[in-house]
Amino acid sequence: MNTVVKAAIIGSTGYGGVELIRLLAGHPQVEVTSVVSSSSAGAPIAEGYPHLTEIRTDLLDDVDPALIKSKADVVFIATPSGIAAKLAPSLLAEGLKVIDLSGDHRLKERGEYETWYKKQPADQEYLDKAVFGLSEVYGESVRGADFVSNPGCYPTATLLGLVPAVKAGFIDPASIIIDAKSGVSGAGRGVNLGHHFAEINENFKAYKLNQHQHIPEIEQVLTDAAGRKIVTTFSTQLIPITRGIMSTMYAGMTGTYTNEDFISLYRNYYEGRHFVRIRQDGTWPATKEVSGSNYCDIGFAVDARTGRVTIVSVIDNLVKGAAGQAIQNLNLMMGWDETLGLRFVPVYP
Amino acid sequence: MNTVVKAAIIGSTGYGGVELIRLLAGHPQVEVTSVVSSSSAGAPIAEGYPHLTEIRTDLLDDVDPALIKSKADVVFIATPSGIAAKLAPSLLAEGLKVIDLSGDHRLKERGEYETWYKKQPADQEYLDKAVFGLSEVYGESVRGADFVSNPGCYPTATLLGLVPAVKAGFIDPASIIIDAKSGVSGAGRGVNLGHHFAEINENFKAYKLNQHQHIPEIEQVLTDAAGRKIVTTFSTQLIPITRGIMSTMYAGMTGTYTNEDFISLYRNYYEGRHFVRIRQDGTWPATKEVSGSNYCDIGFAVDARTGRVTIVSVIDNLVKGAAGQAIQNLNLMMGWDETLGLRFVPVYP
Amino acid sequence: MNTVVKAAIIGSTGYGGVELIRLLAGHPQVEVTSVVSSSSAGAPIAEGYPHLTEIRTDLLDDVDPALIKSKADVVFIATPSGIAAKLAPSLLAEGLKVIDLSGDHRLKERGEYETWYKKQPADQEYLDKAVFGLSEVYGESVRGADFVSNPGCYPTATLLGLVPAVKAGFIDPASIIIDAKSGVSGAGRGVNLGHHFAEINENFKAYKLNQHQHIPEIEQVLTDAAGRKIVTTFSTQLIPITRGIMSTMYAGMTGTYTNEDFISLYRNYYEGRHFVRIRQDGTWPATKEVSGSNYCDIGFAVDARTGRVTIVSVIDNLVKGAAGQAIQNLNLMMGWDETLGLRFVPVYP
Amino acid sequence: MNTVVKAAIIGSTGYGGVELIRLLAGHPQVEVTSVVSSSSAGAPIAEGYPHLTEIRTDLLDDVDPALIKSKADVVFIATPSGIAAKLAPSLLAEGLKVIDLSGDHRLKERGEYETWYKKQPADQEYLDKAVFGLSEVYGESVRGADFVSNPGCYPTATLLGLVPAVKAGFIDPASIIIDAKSGVSGAGRGVNLGHHFAEINENFKAYKLNQHQHIPEIEQVLTDAAGRKIVTTFSTQLIPITRGIMSTMYAGMTGTYTNEDFISLYRNYYEGRHFVRIRQDGTWPATKEVSGSNYCDIGFAVDARTGRVTIVSVIDNLVKGAAGQAIQNLNLMMGWDETLGLRFVPVYP
Repeated sequence: MNTVVKAAIIGSTGYGGVELIRLLAGHPQVEVTSVVSSSSAGAPIAEGYPHLTEIRTDLLDDVDPALIKSKADVVFIATPSGIAAKLAPSLLAEGLKVIDLSGDHRLKERGEYETWYKKQPADQEYLDKAVFGLSEVYGESVRGADFVSNPGCYPTATLLGLVPAVKAGFIDPASIIIDAKSGVSGAGRGVNLGHHFAEINENFKAYKLNQHQHIPEIEQVLTDAAGRKIVTTFSTQLIPITRGIMSTMYAGMTGTYTNEDFISLYRNYYEGRHFVRIRQDGTWPATKEVSGSNYCDIGFAVDARTGRVTIVSVIDNLVKGAAGQAIQNLNLMMGWDETLGLRFVPVYP
Repeated sequence: MNTVVKAAIIGSTGYGGVELIRLLAGHPQVEVTSVVSSSSAGAPIAEGYPHLTEIRTDLLDDVDPALIKSKADVVFIATPSGIAAKLAPSLLAEGLKVIDLSGDHRLKERGEYETWYKKQPADQEYLDKAVFGLSEVYGESVRGADFVSNPGCYPTATLLGLVPAVKAGFIDPASIIIDAKSGVSGAGRGVNLGHHFAEINENFKAYKLNQHQHIPEIEQVLTDAAGRKIVTTFSTQLIPITRGIMSTMYAGMTGTYTNEDFISLYRNYYEGRHFVRIRQDGTWPATKEVSGSNYCDIGFAVDARTGRVTIVSVIDNLVKGAAGQAIQNLNLMMGWDETLGLRFVPVYP
Repeated sequence: MNTVVKAAIIGSTGYGGVELIRLLAGHPQVEVTSVVSSSSAGAPIAEGYPHLTEIRTDLLDDVDPALIKSKADVVFIATPSGIAAKLAPSLLAEGLKVIDLSGDHRLKERGEYETWYKKQPADQEYLDKAVFGLSEVYGESVRGADFVSNPGCYPTATLLGLVPAVKAGFIDPASIIIDAKSGVSGAGRGVNLGHHFAEINENFKAYKLNQHQHIPEIEQVLTDAAGRKIVTTFSTQLIPITRGIMSTMYAGMTGTYTNEDFISLYRNYYEGRHFVRIRQDGTWPATKEVSGSNYCDIGFAVDARTGRVTIVSVIDNLVKGAAGQAIQNLNLMMGWDETLGLRFVPVYP
Repeated sequence: MNTVVKAAIIGSTGYGGVELIRLLAGHPQVEVTSVVSSSSAGAPIAEGYPHLTEIRTDLLDDVDPALIKSKADVVFIATPSGIAAKLAPSLLAEGLKVIDLSGDHRLKERGEYETWYKKQPADQEYLDKAVFGLSEVYGESVRGADFVSNPGCYPTATLLGLVPAVKAGFIDPASIIIDAKSGVSGAGRGVNLGHHFAEINENFKAYKLNQHQHIPEIEQVLTDAAGRKIVTTFSTQLIPITRGIMSTMYAGMTGTYTNEDFISLYRNYYEGRHFVRIRQDGTWPATKEVSGSNYCDIGFAVDARTGRVTIVSVIDNLVKGAAGQAIQNLNLMMGWDETLGLRFVPVYP
């Protein structure tokens, strides 16, 4: 007999929250028992999301830890940054397992959070307690954890593409340059001129160059992998698509490696991990090839002329970059197969 | 203990075929045991569709009825028109259940097929034998059938939006005008200038006005529903999106009905049928609200000033308009719950 | 020696205003001497529109009729509805020529405006004074006028497609059904969830069915052309593109006309008018084929089976549907060639 | 009295050719007297490009140098690579001025062409004779020239973004990494699966990493600017838009420069050159902000943490990256103001 875990989703009216609803609807051992929203509490969730008509007929609950505890065993926090830091202590105190999809518990140093997020950081106790849920790298820590901080969308694509090469010493970590691109859903459902259709459509634009709050998160893991302090160059650009991230990464190689050397290295590193697919020599992944799925696909282009390697990594920012990875982490926290409820085929075309 | 049915897909390298692969991967009682393609037999299917990397590692089989029979119990034919008419007799003779997604067995009169498709029609025996799989209208015939002709994408959206009102006599069937729009995947994966990205993107165009081969299919069902010969005006237009059909339909009303009258009528007609959702008064569905799912959503706008009603119906052309409806038909043919493996939440945003 | 007219643009920070700036920059006899905005007065216009960097370095003026008069001879009002009704009297009193791109002076009956716009109408005196600037139909009135009301985007595409057939009696005006689609720029630059990129992209949606404020404008002209009161069915739908309108129109024919009959009729009607192009038999225009230009392209599909004709008409909503037509009207008001400064080739692809 | 030059366009049915037609239609001193196409000779050009209906009613001429000479003074060659190398000698021998938009005369070393284009190079005599038409860098050579090789689209955006910093020694040229992205029109009008709408839409993909034929062109100019042999890392990626290139460039700085230092350097370098716009501190250009225009916009992001600068450069690939720059070169060849006929305002939105 299968355990069924009851889950609550705080921030159900955002794109991350509504994607959790979509994915968990197919999970054999999770039931979503409470959809929570501070802004729209009391309203039917299908009112703002007509695609949920007849699928979820319940009303949005208010953000009340005791109420959530009465309905759920685990809680996903899918809110903008600054909120989870305030909510997590009381949710954990209620004995709930917590998965925080926001940036509030990713950086281990409070000062870094203040510098990059310009907000009040979480208490050090909770930063220490939160396990960074990049499970292909830190999977052992995630197994059995009660409190997981889900990685950011850009860091997920980027770090899965860099960590094996940094750990193996194939590349010089100080030389890394990351050119990342994201679909617009990554910015959330909030309205502003920058996300108006007529401003984005048939357009491609750079933003927050060298200033994005995901930079310290990437550097924290690269530093851990390299065993020395790493700073990096990181660009973010908006693609006129809804879903998808491509991280194109450049680094100087430490020797005369080939594409096949990288392919072998990465296949070994990710052996047994379902959601990372290493592409064959001479091909690179496109964002659509993972759309709607929890895959991260990676390809390589070694250049003997320059002594550099180009690494291309793609994810669906709302799945592997948010809701899917959060469910993968839940699976590991519960001691289940990490692929439970997540064996979706990408939606193509 | 659950039966598992083995399925083959002819035309696996087309968009309809590859969508069957995606959807059937999550079906609890179907296993795809053979992917078939005349044009690419012998090649790995993932070569042309890298999103299937590590998901389907098999090679494409050739179109050989005996081979298919040795591997499968049921066969989906997802080929361009003109091919299924030739294949169906030998596949049926092998004892396979057959679901034809092409247009070859939809029209009951051979002359109509010749007129609109400009090709040689199937033998009358097979046209008579094929059950028209618009299961919300002809569900009783589909249950237990061995040979089903899956409706076209445009007719599915259109007929689900019109049949209840025609049968109830709320509208004058002779007055019906249908303005239909489709995403580009409906035209298949074949390359031509008309489907070049730079020609479609940031563009909207009409094609085959009053000439589309789905016209006689729509008229056949409307004639059946009305009890008298109906001809209709039907326009097709290309939306610069990949998936989705909207059919906007106009008709003169026979009395002074309200939106609520239509809503009640349609909810009654589709009672117990999972995949048709009637929207509440004052709202109309958008194509994205059913994307990736098997739903058909319908809304109404009665206009007292003109005595006409406008009916809006949307589907995902590759799911309810092709692969999803084909699986729904398989479920009915097998005597299963029609929603088996199809309870997807739409992919939104 | 050429006259140079000085022009002011009220509402310069909207899409209609900024398109006037684009088009007038190439006009040989007009100089834009004041860009006006109540919301952003004092700021450089290029701040909100970086594409104007080094092209327009001036600051936005406040809405002050005397100031405008001191700088300009003519004024374009490109504001949301409800504002021009208040501004026009004082601008006209200053002796300025006025072209109103908003809906405030299009409907001749104040009650109609109140019913459809839910706002206070302009004074009857100014409704009477304003010439409706659909110059291909009412060109003689526009010549030499001081105050022109520029038609709406949907009515422009629709009426150019219908008026010749209605006037000639080829179609029954009571049978007309109009299925119109627009790109998103038609809704302006204001931000709201309905125009968020992730909500529109890869989507197609209907809105304001039978309720759009352009309905009475269309009916006013059809009534005039038919010589009797006409009500009509009119649908509006959002295409995920920035620019472009297609109006697909249906009507019962009064006789057995052919496509060639319609083509001849329309070519005769529009003889000598540069901006309406009648397509040859068997082809229909696409929105991109007029993008960035002042053309309205029209094609026909007569259907002998149903006795109906389908008429397809396309424009660029910001050019022929707004700024371009306004300049065409200015040319006529000034007694110039109507094509002055407007002989753009469509931007394709 | 103004000279009017007669121009022929070889390759008029490609996107580059048809863009020349669009732009030259507004040029006060050029008349296009012959549109030439080997594949469609004899057909009306508007047949394949209905947006030219009533604008160009002439038939396509065959590729015949004597015929071209009888009709024209200058000829634009806008063909795929491999053709201009064969045509240029006879066109020049006829006394025509020639502007080659293809890649055939850009690389000064025949071996480089063979390596990267895998085709037979032009004769060395013509490679020597052809002036590389990046006029903001090599403008003095272009003035009065008879034979100009128009730069590639990617090199134009990239080199305008790099040359001033390399020449001034602000950056280490050996450290340059170029991450470039292009809209789909850059690949031309030829049909193939890779450009099928359903494959590109809502997708972002990398291609030809470290293998693109524009690499040696970029390196040739960087080598010239640096005064020593430079090799570089260059990536190309496809944006799901029609027009636009963004080149995002990374380099190690040789000192502690600020954004303002770069801005001053570039403004000085491009002083008096109309088509390069340097953005103010803290802002970066988006592709749409130059769409339809001949501008190249450039912005900077110096990062003190890493000692690197990120440079963002955008163009419209069909204008500044092809037809517009070709006309700018013609203006210089003729001794005219370089902006003649090119003072378009970008089409926004």
